[in-house]
Amino acid sequence: MPDSQTIRRLDAGASGFDAELDRLLAWNEEQNPQVEAAVADILQSVRTGGDAALLACTARFDGWEPASAGALEVSPEEQKAALARIPAPMREALERAAARIRSYHGRQVQQSWQYHDEDGHLLGQQVRPLDRVGVYVPGGKAAYPSSVLMNVLPARVAGVPEVVLVAPSPGGARNDFVLAAAAIAGVDRFLQVGGAQAVAALAYGTESVRPVDKIVGPGNIYVATAKRMVFGRVAIDMIAGPSEILVVCDGQTDPHWVVMDLFSQAEHDENAQSILISPDAAFLDAVHAEIERCLPEMTRADIIRQSLRERGALIRVPDLDQAVTLINRIAPEHLELSVADPQALLPGIRHAGAIFLGRHAAEAMGDYCAGPNHVLPTAGTARFFSPLGVYDFQKRSSLIGLAPGAVDALARDAETLATGEGLEAHARSAACRIGAE
Amino acid sequence: MPDSQTIRRLDAGASGFDAELDRLLAWNEEQNPQVEAAVADILQSVRTGGDAALLACTARFDGWEPASAGALEVSPEEQKAALARIPAPMREALERAAARIRSYHGRQVQQSWQYHDEDGHLLGQQVRPLDRVGVYVPGGKAAYPSSVLMNVLPARVAGVPEVVLVAPSPGGARNDFVLAAAAIAGVDRFLQVGGAQAVAALAYGTESVRPVDKIVGPGNIYVATAKRMVFGRVAIDMIAGPSEILVVCDGQTDPHWVVMDLFSQAEHDENAQSILISPDAAFLDAVHAEIERCLPEMTRADIIRQSLRERGALIRVPDLDQAVTLINRIAPEHLELSVADPQALLPGIRHAGAIFLGRHAAEAMGDYCAGPNHVLPTAGTARFFSPLGVYDFQKRSSLIGLAPGAVDALARDAETLATGEGLEAHARSAACRIGAE
Repeated sequence: MPDSQTIRRLDAGASGFDAELDRLLAWNEEQNPQVEAAVADILQSVRTGGDAALLACTARFDGWEPASAGALEVSPEEQKAALARIPAPMREALERAAARIRSYHGRQVQQSWQYHDEDGHLLGQQVRPLDRVGVYVPGGKAAYPSSVLMNVLPARVAGVPEVVLVAPSPGGARNDFVLAAAAIAGVDRFLQVGGAQAVAALAYGTESVRPVDKIVGPGNIYVATAKRMVFGRVAIDMIAGPSEILVVCDGQTDPHWVVMDLFSQAEHDENAQSILISPDAAFLDAVHAEIERCLPEMTRADIIRQSLRERGALIRVPDLDQAVTLINRIAPEHLELSVADPQALLPGIRHAGAIFLGRHAAEAMGDYCAGPNHVLPTAGTARFFSPLGVYDFQKRSSLIGLAPGAVDALARDAETLATGEGLEAHARSAACRIGAE
Repeated sequence: MPDSQTIRRLDAGASGFDAELDRLLAWNEEQNPQVEAAVADILQSVRTGGDAALLACTARFDGWEPASAGALEVSPEEQKAALARIPAPMREALERAAARIRSYHGRQVQQSWQYHDEDGHLLGQQVRPLDRVGVYVPGGKAAYPSSVLMNVLPARVAGVPEVVLVAPSPGGARNDFVLAAAAIAGVDRFLQVGGAQAVAALAYGTESVRPVDKIVGPGNIYVATAKRMVFGRVAIDMIAGPSEILVVCDGQTDPHWVVMDLFSQAEHDENAQSILISPDAAFLDAVHAEIERCLPEMTRADIIRQSLRERGALIRVPDLDQAVTLINRIAPEHLELSVADPQALLPGIRHAGAIFLGRHAAEAMGDYCAGPNHVLPTAGTARFFSPLGVYDFQKRSSLIGLAPGAVDALARDAETLATGEGLEAHARSAACRIGAE
């Protein structure tokens, strides 16, 4: 008999469902004042103290003492050596993943355009890559080479000339997989710094670090808070919360597949969220039983158990139309459409970070190697944010060239509108062009 | 004899130029702690107090007392009546401007795409408009109908189903031009609220205002601070500073035209920045003299004088190549290429919000009616931000559908990579699909 302590069971038709779903989805987005104060201090100290402060923070927070700013650098040779050192299957899987990520992101490149309108005026949009980008990758026990590929490659595809990778090395220990991924993706610099101090160095610059234009990549609460605080001085990608998966299933998928998909999200951390929606009550029972059966054997069972208990749910809906309504309300980071005809549901789906179509498309394959990015909007922000992409590393300039012979009509309208807004110099700047050759 | 007190003269070849330019461009982006505290209070009060707090803030900050939340609403009929009431030339100029803005922004619409890769996997990107957007337009003495068009029309072109316009009515007074522009652009609601309280209502919702997904539009320091503080809960467009123009001239443009262009920026406010760069020293002298001649006759002479004195400059460069180097260093909001062959300079320009090509393309025409947006990145943020555009009102979902017969290779790579990252459930989620039909 499945235990409702393991994961909650909800019925979308039950009274009180809406409020219960709201509670389940609620993620406390409030800032923590203590974290804010600590991060503000670190930002200020690196901003004024430069490399010396960066080294001091590294000693304090990462537990090792680099001899100089130069000692923070992981050279291209060291990256290449790591790539040669790791097991061949890992190296080859990283290389194949990189090739697929490059290929997909190549389709996102935006091109400049110009056209002449019916009056002969030239209008357009010039697209350029950013000059310098900083990529933050977590280090330590959770070191993710896949995040190196997912954050660096779109910048490379966009043509960013300078990509700086930062990753902390707790105790000075390096992760060969991360170094190898950096070698494959191609970074201009790799610095073993992390936390708010790394964000500060990238945003403000130090003697040894040039300031960048944008900082992307996942990080803990200190990194996320620092990124929020430097936003405006530099661009940032997004504010990320815990990871989530929403599986919608018609009841015809192997329950074991669905359980492993739910577990793959839950194993990230205790706050991760795994939700299954199905119109098939017997299927929900089967999944529930399979969760009970498989949970004890997982190496990260404690994390999975807490995540499912606190934030997971198996939700019964009357039909798949109702499932689509819930999808748009949840706006999930990852959405699996584990149904016979996923394309039929697609037109109705307005909000999701990544949509996995069909029973075979496990989120885990998207996380690593399908091609699209795994940096996705969380906590309902798929309502307005997009996956990390090449477009994050390009920006636009408007182009306006006026045909001398057709300027008068535009100038008269500008004069009228500027006068209406009380801006005399605007009006005169337009008007003085009237009648000119 | 031109007075160097009117506007500073700099020579890019002189020693100390770099430091002087840095000082000139420096814009204090620090937050004001008093403003931050006041805004945090307002946000909290509206978040917890809803409509009652919104009405209380409106009484306190805008100096009028709406009888109820319903009294904040400007009905479509009132907007249409204003449109009928304003002078015909103004109405027609607004309508022509709207048509040009719609036409240009129509080219920015991004389409969804899907493709099958060589293994038969379906990959793609689904593009959707945001559900609900809030547009902030300043009211009171500086009421800008052009900002209504520039902020609302891209959202409408993107297909956003619900656009809410907010604009303060100091003393309860409405601006007919703003109402008329709202009628032309088409808004779903128009609320006479402003300041941080309007941002709070849009971000958190009240009994009478549904929360939106993104807040765009210009505002004072309170509005900008409030937008920064709600960022993450909703999306925002950008953090705007004072407006700027950089004119690059080969010396062959009528000095009067250039002076009116510089004035059109300087008249915005005392912190606005107007800079002219030319390799022609005699031309710079002629512009300087024309500034002296025209300044006394301008209605906004006091603002222009202070802006030019504090933040303006006439800069001599050795040649146009050097001008391009300075353009990229300044990353101006508005750039006029007042030269014989502006297209020749374009490939070298990496950073600018809007680029005006040729002597006839005055910024003022772009501000109102050329077609491209006048909401542009300021204070050097053109290094990483883009003009407001249709892309600000669309977002993307990744699409991943795996061909059952070709899943094994991907699943094996995902299993390898997940195992390397220590994520067992990810590995098993991929692996259980191997060999399946």
